[in-house]
Parts: sequence; C-alpha cells; structure tokens
Amino acid sequence: MKYELYYWPEIQGRGEYVRLALEEAGAAYVDVARGPRGVATMMKMMDVQKGTPPFAPPFLKAGKLVIGQTANILLYLGARHGLALKTEAGRLWVHQLQLTITDFVVEIHDTHHPLGPSLYYEDQKAPAKKRTDEFWGERVPKYLGYFEQLLAANGGAYVTGRRPTYVDLSLFQIVEGLRYAFPKRMKTFEKGVPGLVGLHERVAARPNIKAYLASERRIPFNEQGIFRRYRELDR
Amino acid sequence: MKYELYYWPEIQGRGEYVRLALEEAGAAYVDVARGPRGVATMMKMMDVQKGTPPFAPPFLKAGKLVIGQTANILLYLGARHGLALKTEAGRLWVHQLQLTITDFVVEIHDTHHPLGPSLYYEDQKAPAKKRTDEFWGERVPKYLGYFEQLLAANGGAYVTGRRPTYVDLSLFQIVEGLRYAFPKRMKTFEKGVPGLVGLHERVAARPNIKAYLASERRIPFNEQGIFRRYRELDR
Repeated sequence: MKYELYYWPEIQGRGEYVRLALEEAGAAYVDVARGPRGVATMMKMMDVQKGTPPFAPPFLKAGKLVIGQTANILLYLGARHGLALKTEAGRLWVHQLQLTITDFVVEIHDTHHPLGPSLYYEDQKAPAKKRTDEFWGERVPKYLGYFEQLLAANGGAYVTGRRPTYVDLSLFQIVEGLRYAFPKRMKTFEKGVPGLVGLHERVAARPNIKAYLASERRIPFNEQGIFRRYRELDR
Repeated sequence: MKYELYYWPEIQGRGEYVRLALEEAGAAYVDVARGPRGVATMMKMMDVQKGTPPFAPPFLKAGKLVIGQTANILLYLGARHGLALKTEAGRLWVHQLQLTITDFVVEIHDTHHPLGPSLYYEDQKAPAKKRTDEFWGERVPKYLGYFEQLLAANGGAYVTGRRPTYVDLSLFQIVEGLRYAFPKRMKTFEKGVPGLVGLHERVAARPNIKAYLASERRIPFNEQGIFRRYRELDR
C-alpha cells in the first residue's frame, strides 16, 4: 500500500512532521498536492459532505482510511512502523509528548500571528514583537527545558530511550526551525540545551533522514510556513 | 479502580472536558487538587525527574498509568467507557475531531491572551479586541460550521450518529462557554447553527450530565479560565 499525504505543496508546515516519519520509516508515499492538480484534489477531499472530511491539511490516506490532525496521523504511523513504544502505556506516553509539541507549534506560529491566522504579518508587527519576546523569555525555556530534562533522564540518546520515535523526529524539526527563524536568539539559547542539540544531530545523521534532507522532497523553509525569519523578531 | 483527576481546582479550563467524560460515564473519580493539599500533590507529580511527568495539567491517574493532554485522556477514557466508536477507523476519527476542538480551544483562549499566556489580560486589551473580532469574523464560523455540517450529515442527534461520544460532550462545553463569555455575539451567531444548539440541549438533558451540572462538582465559569466574560470583547 502506498500512502497518500495531503498537505500544502509550498511549505513544510505541519505536514513536515508526517513527512519526517514517512521518510524515516522508508514508507512508500505520494505527496499528492505537489503533483498535477494536487491541490484541487486535496480541497475536494475536504469538501465531502458525508463520511469523515478533515477540517484542514495535513491528512493521510492509508487504504480506505483518511486520517487528519498531525498527531493523530503520527499515532497511526508510529504503531505501524516502529516509531513509537509498543505497550499501551508507551503509546499513550509518546502521543502525549507529541501533543505537547503540537501546543508548542501553535505558540511558534503565534509569534508572527498573535492577532490571528487570517490577518497578514505586516498588519500585526508590533504585537508580534511583544509576543516573540514573551515566547523566548517564558515559553521556549519551559517547553524545551521539559524535553531536555526527559532526554537526560532517559540516557540522552532519544527522548524515550535508545531508539527514536516520531517525537524525536519532531524535536529535530523544532530545533531546525528555530535555528532558521531566530538564528541569533537560538544560538544563545542552545547553550542551555546540549541534549537537544545532540538529539538534533543524531536524527539528522540517520541515513533515511539524511537522504531526505538532501533531496528535493524537502521543501526549503520560507516565510509562508510555521517558522519564519523576520529580522525584527530576532535579536 | 478509582480514577484520580489532576487539574487546577478553581477553573473549568481544559480539565472540564475530562470531567464531563467521567461524569457521563458514571466513573468513580477524585478531583484531587480540589481536596486538602491537592495542588501540592499535583505539582509534585509534574516534578518527577524519571518516568513520565506530564508537562501540564490536566492529567489522569488510572491505576499505574499517568496520562496527560486532554485529548489523550479522552482517547483512553473513550475506549473504556463507550464514549467513542469501536473500530480503529472510528477511534481515530473521534480523536481527530477532538484534536480539532483542541485547536479551537487554543484560539478561544487567545482572544483574551493574544500576546501570550504569561502576561495579564489587562496588559493586552487592545490586541485582544482585534483578535476577538477576527475570531468571530473568521474562526468561529469555520470551526462551528464544520461541526454543524458533520452533525447534519450524520442524522442530527450527535456528531457521529445516534450515540454521544466525548466529542459531543466537548461541543456542549464549547457552546456553553461561548454563551458565557460572549452572550451577545453568541446569541446572534447561534441562529446559524441550529444543529449545535440542539446537540447542546440533548447533552445537557442526559441524566448524568444534568446531575453533574447541578452539583458543586461543576465549578462556575469565571475570569481565570478559558472562557472569560469581558464586556469590551462582546458587542
């Protein structure tokens, strides 16, 4: 079975957490919206009046199943491709961590869109600056400090132990994205989270991930995604 | 087994979605932080250096399991208490809908805290007004319109059919909360979502929920929770 991933074709965005899991697993998939008439197909699937139409991309078609919400897709893939723990307790724990990352991703997005997703960044620059200060002063230390601590408590290789889960792939993306969007702030901050910096390197060096990052399947960061580089928000 | 729920004792907040599920199920539980030294116990459980410390309340202790993240707790409870669909596809679908509600809850909270959760509302009144306008202009119609449509497509009783799931309980809370926080705006908006208004009534009339709402276990809405009534944000 070939998976079908549906996500906006020009950004990494929330789809990237799914792409990283599919790539690490070596799973066969099509990134549908990047192909011809792909966006139209994606929009049509969300417009279905019956059945289980997703609220928003990303969503994954796996045979007859259509699964929406990033963390929900990872819950499904994790169990099938050895990217989660196997016991019920372990599955719930890894999912819980992913949902915490999900919360963090919303806060990352809100740094440039504090007044809401429907307005342009250019119309909310002053509040974005305030929100970004609060984000780096309070929220980044709280979220990344939590994962740094878990990592240390579990041996230092990956968050839940010696083998990576989809949570580690997502944390790689968080570090990579914060480095892109806030190079100066992140450079300073990283000194306090050596464990996460090491995790980022370990994920980046995994053969499937390394090949993916060097391929055209990896969309470059840009100012339409979650992580945006606006000089005035960095310091 | 008696569940232990851990959540801030003075607000409904995110804990309320779990309380509603436990109450509808008639499950035995203790709302730990509302008892003597409960908050200290809760804080201690989050401070554990090993194991699976939750990032934030709410979390649920079920025997040896400690489960964090509202939607994750509901995923667990739903399967055990007949508050979700039974097939794998059904479980994922109900969870997906709950994660969409989770996203909406963040946006509800952001109406009064657009500059971030660490600052006071009083220090962000002007951006809160802008964010609230965008919320009612764009986001409420998008989210609640989606659920209204699902409801209609599935017969009109509950979102996934003739029996309620934890998603319906959460939607009850959303309607109840929006009525509390934005009485004027919601009164106008409700005319366009008769299905959700009916669902709200059906949930409120269920015997266990009705008894719960009339009890002291239900904390009244107030201006420390997700849904806050600030006259200047209503119209």
